[in-house]
Amino acid sequence: MNNPSTSVAITSPIPARLVQLRSAMKEHQIDAMIIPSADPHLSEYLPERWQGRSYLSGFTGSVGTLIVTAHFAGLWVDSRYWSQAEKELAPTGIEMMKIASAASVAHIEWLANNMQEGQVVAVDGDVLGLMTARMLAQQLTAKSVQLKTDIDLLQTIWSDRPGLPLAPIFEHLPPFATVSRKDKLAQIREQMRAKGAEWHFVSTVDDIAWIFNLRGSDVSYNPVFAGHALIGHHDATIFVEEGKVSSDLQTILAQDHIHVRPYAQAANALSQLSAAEKTSILIDPRRITLGFQQAIPSHVKVIDAINPSVFIKSRKNAQEADFVREAMEQDGAALCEFFSWLESALGRERITEITIDEKICEARARQPHFISPSFGTIAGFNGNGAMPHYRATPESHAVIEGDGLLLIDSGGQYLNGTTDITRVVPVGQVSEAQKRDFTLVLKGMIQLSKAVFPKGTPSPMLDALARAPIWAEGINYGHGTGHGVGYFLNVHEGPQSISAAMPEPHTAMEIGMITSNEPGIYRPGQWGVRIENLLMTVPAVQTEFGDYVKFESLTLCPIDTRCIISTMLNDEEINWLNAYHTMVFHRLSPRVSGKALAWLETRTRSIC
Amino acid sequence: MNNPSTSVAITSPIPARLVQLRSAMKEHQIDAMIIPSADPHLSEYLPERWQGRSYLSGFTGSVGTLIVTAHFAGLWVDSRYWSQAEKELAPTGIEMMKIASAASVAHIEWLANNMQEGQVVAVDGDVLGLMTARMLAQQLTAKSVQLKTDIDLLQTIWSDRPGLPLAPIFEHLPPFATVSRKDKLAQIREQMRAKGAEWHFVSTVDDIAWIFNLRGSDVSYNPVFAGHALIGHHDATIFVEEGKVSSDLQTILAQDHIHVRPYAQAANALSQLSAAEKTSILIDPRRITLGFQQAIPSHVKVIDAINPSVFIKSRKNAQEADFVREAMEQDGAALCEFFSWLESALGRERITEITIDEKICEARARQPHFISPSFGTIAGFNGNGAMPHYRATPESHAVIEGDGLLLIDSGGQYLNGTTDITRVVPVGQVSEAQKRDFTLVLKGMIQLSKAVFPKGTPSPMLDALARAPIWAEGINYGHGTGHGVGYFLNVHEGPQSISAAMPEPHTAMEIGMITSNEPGIYRPGQWGVRIENLLMTVPAVQTEFGDYVKFESLTLCPIDTRCIISTMLNDEEINWLNAYHTMVFHRLSPRVSGKALAWLETRTRSIC
Repeated sequence: MNNPSTSVAITSPIPARLVQLRSAMKEHQIDAMIIPSADPHLSEYLPERWQGRSYLSGFTGSVGTLIVTAHFAGLWVDSRYWSQAEKELAPTGIEMMKIASAASVAHIEWLANNMQEGQVVAVDGDVLGLMTARMLAQQLTAKSVQLKTDIDLLQTIWSDRPGLPLAPIFEHLPPFATVSRKDKLAQIREQMRAKGAEWHFVSTVDDIAWIFNLRGSDVSYNPVFAGHALIGHHDATIFVEEGKVSSDLQTILAQDHIHVRPYAQAANALSQLSAAEKTSILIDPRRITLGFQQAIPSHVKVIDAINPSVFIKSRKNAQEADFVREAMEQDGAALCEFFSWLESALGRERITEITIDEKICEARARQPHFISPSFGTIAGFNGNGAMPHYRATPESHAVIEGDGLLLIDSGGQYLNGTTDITRVVPVGQVSEAQKRDFTLVLKGMIQLSKAVFPKGTPSPMLDALARAPIWAEGINYGHGTGHGVGYFLNVHEGPQSISAAMPEPHTAMEIGMITSNEPGIYRPGQWGVRIENLLMTVPAVQTEFGDYVKFESLTLCPIDTRCIISTMLNDEEINWLNAYHTMVFHRLSPRVSGKALAWLETRTRSIC
Repeated sequence: MNNPSTSVAITSPIPARLVQLRSAMKEHQIDAMIIPSADPHLSEYLPERWQGRSYLSGFTGSVGTLIVTAHFAGLWVDSRYWSQAEKELAPTGIEMMKIASAASVAHIEWLANNMQEGQVVAVDGDVLGLMTARMLAQQLTAKSVQLKTDIDLLQTIWSDRPGLPLAPIFEHLPPFATVSRKDKLAQIREQMRAKGAEWHFVSTVDDIAWIFNLRGSDVSYNPVFAGHALIGHHDATIFVEEGKVSSDLQTILAQDHIHVRPYAQAANALSQLSAAEKTSILIDPRRITLGFQQAIPSHVKVIDAINPSVFIKSRKNAQEADFVREAMEQDGAALCEFFSWLESALGRERITEITIDEKICEARARQPHFISPSFGTIAGFNGNGAMPHYRATPESHAVIEGDGLLLIDSGGQYLNGTTDITRVVPVGQVSEAQKRDFTLVLKGMIQLSKAVFPKGTPSPMLDALARAPIWAEGINYGHGTGHGVGYFLNVHEGPQSISAAMPEPHTAMEIGMITSNEPGIYRPGQWGVRIENLLMTVPAVQTEFGDYVKFESLTLCPIDTRCIISTMLNDEEINWLNAYHTMVFHRLSPRVSGKALAWLETRTRSIC
């Protein structure tokens, strides 16, 4: 916990912004203000306009909740960001409140415990998830604390607040788009019918992009656009800022009875749902804001259910699976070029963490169908690698020199798939302790890669398989083991999650899902190890006990055997690693040549 | 699914009882009646008086929910009971409704889907868990179906319904009771204070037995008595049927300000909670019935929380742990006597599954501090072993002859601990397929036994460790891997559970907990394998990543190495097994002699 009294720097703009906020709070008789990391779409990456938490706190990490009262300001942040938040909050006077995971509701408990009867807690309902809103209301009501959600104080105090992003929307076209938007709408409507819903409102940008085979570039990395959609059985409306959809594209969409209306009219469209007859709407309480739920008139029957597109989107079909396999070969070829350059350049050129980012992006950009990185490259040398969400900046980054481990977590968006891979490269001399950590992480990663389990197993149940070899040595990592990955879409998508999440039915591991496998070990200030492949769930065997599935390793890139203590691996683990390297060589060697091919050959040699 | 039209036997009393029930339902304008397996204490074992589901359905298994409408009767039952329910329901016309686990709420969904607007569903609120009641009310209200909970139709149609059990209540005394009831009440009151509760109402019989160091014999196997308790900060009241607590014991209890009142006055005591001032009561919605919750006047603030005794009771203290270790030696010595007799008698005497039960209970009864079996012995030969909750009866049981596997799951209640163990014995020739299943189950059991993990890990997260080696061959088992075990108390106790249960905070694995480890493989009609040890959570190591815990194997009894295919075990598994057998020999050999000692020596020999 930092000590604000000793570290407030006069150069930070944050204290003045908090003064403004507190004055606005006083004027509106608000005792506590919650500023979540959220936009009206509950997205992971927020357009500038909705970076209010960052504007008011100075914390630039992607997840964190700010709470401000008259005499307190605290930022609730999970272990991925503790180091970063400590630095960034130091000059602000804002206290860091450590939470175990991003799913924690500790800030709600803090409010329930610290607010007095009759006091008022405010939060902008337009960026507050409905699920969170319900929990918040319940906890505060129990303490007779009032919850105010119809006010956006940011609007009044943030004078140069950015507008909506205006990047054009484009089509995801065949052959990479393997199902037409008409057929996707038919699938959604079938599920709406099964639930008895006349309408379905969608706010989540990856769902909208997937349903309509549209993409955008409103935020970095995820090829999505800010929009909402209202789907009926005969037509559908997309709400986006004017000018983003060309008239040609509007004509194409109109052929499938898809209309385009201004972004700001979405809530209005909900409030005007026919009062003439009893109607019904399917909304996903985890994927819609309180504001939109409140816009639905009371005569409309609300059906709470997970967005149908979440399930369909997560299960890649056979054609998509083949395209992704090809994307992985493209990505792997780029990585061969990058890593062969890195190895030859180390010790001969000045290489920084920033250079790594540039070079790896350049290598990917030379591949066909490449669009953009799929997230900000994490290149962390030694102590920087110990911060799972580290990001080198021009102002603060390390030079890769001397001895140690270089962790590189990166990925690409291709029209035929999304990639995400982490590898660790030895630099100079690597210590036995570093090799031990590397080998433990590899063991965990192999155990999960080899898993066979019943189709439909709740994905959180698999988490312990990757952790067991690491736990065995009294070590753990503070992030999940695996997240779902989209198809030329978000690099983080649900519904599956290999983590300590609740193993609810919607988390079932199903055929066609793509999930990361990325255990790690982090030694603060020293080094970090994470090894990550993407896995596709595929059929394994059918027995009298049912259908069993296994993982196909999609990611194609050598795992550096120079960091392995081979006596720590059992026969099955060594066999897995050798078979993986044989496959990687077989798949990538036709795509690379020269130095890259020589590097691939060397780094995929069998061990033992 | 059985076909009622072809299998109704005229000798069953069930159809006539259903006719009576339906006539009573009609009279009270009830469209559907739910008859759960439950009593006012939400116990696992029900006194005769509350065996209404069994009375009305003929199904004698411990868990199942009966729903009766005018034209339908169905019993929702999990996979443990499918074979048994199929047999027992055959002559009744009641349909078996298969559910995945006892925690399923499929019957509630069935009601929501099959009842019409305005219809009435009834269930006796006095035996309906509050948590279930809330879910039921929510689902039915959403469909405009009425829920009626203030009626007990059984009372009107069950003419010879048994009364309350009258067995005397006795003290669990030092040295085995290691903490006085005064000190236990102080611990409970401390937690009540922390939650702001003036009162705490407890209905669960193991909590009451534990808090007051009292035991009873109102049901088989669990040494508990039917009672409720109302705990205030200065005194406490136990509600039990008159005559069960002797006047001497009443005097002893009064010293700690514990009063005894008639069983029937519990609800009344709640309804008379002081209206003079604002008061508050802590109740556990998973461990109290709707009936009692409704008895609490509206001016009393209700604090929903898990019973504090659930946590304290689950964490055995050092003295209790030592007593349990001794109980395990007693139990192990009894098992040496039993198994050495069994091996020498097999093929020479007529042995049935009933003989097994008798002999194993006799062996335990010769040990000090023995009170009773801790559950009905499951002795299943070949196909009978494939039913996880099989119970041989005088009318229906197998003779142990020929070739195959004999599964024996049994346990004892001792004043110094509760035991629960499963072993599988080879009879005649054992096939390679049987050995393969045995070895897979053993691998799973060893993997969990060897686990090291962070203190406080949600116990459900550990489930996959035991399943992984079994899943790898496309096999699974339909029950949890592990349940908590009491200290001279219930053989099934929470809050931990190594299963697909929700990994909620209260399921955390903590030091001092005793949990079973019992993976299995079941081949319907052929054979069953289950190997079960009890494990105690103990400290493993402290590192910069926190406190890590591991399991101490409490159960002391050889695992039959004749059923093992040793090439399927890796070095770590073989080492674990040999070390376990060395410990078993070391701990048990001083307690046995003659044939039993010779058997122990043979069966604990190292393999490979």
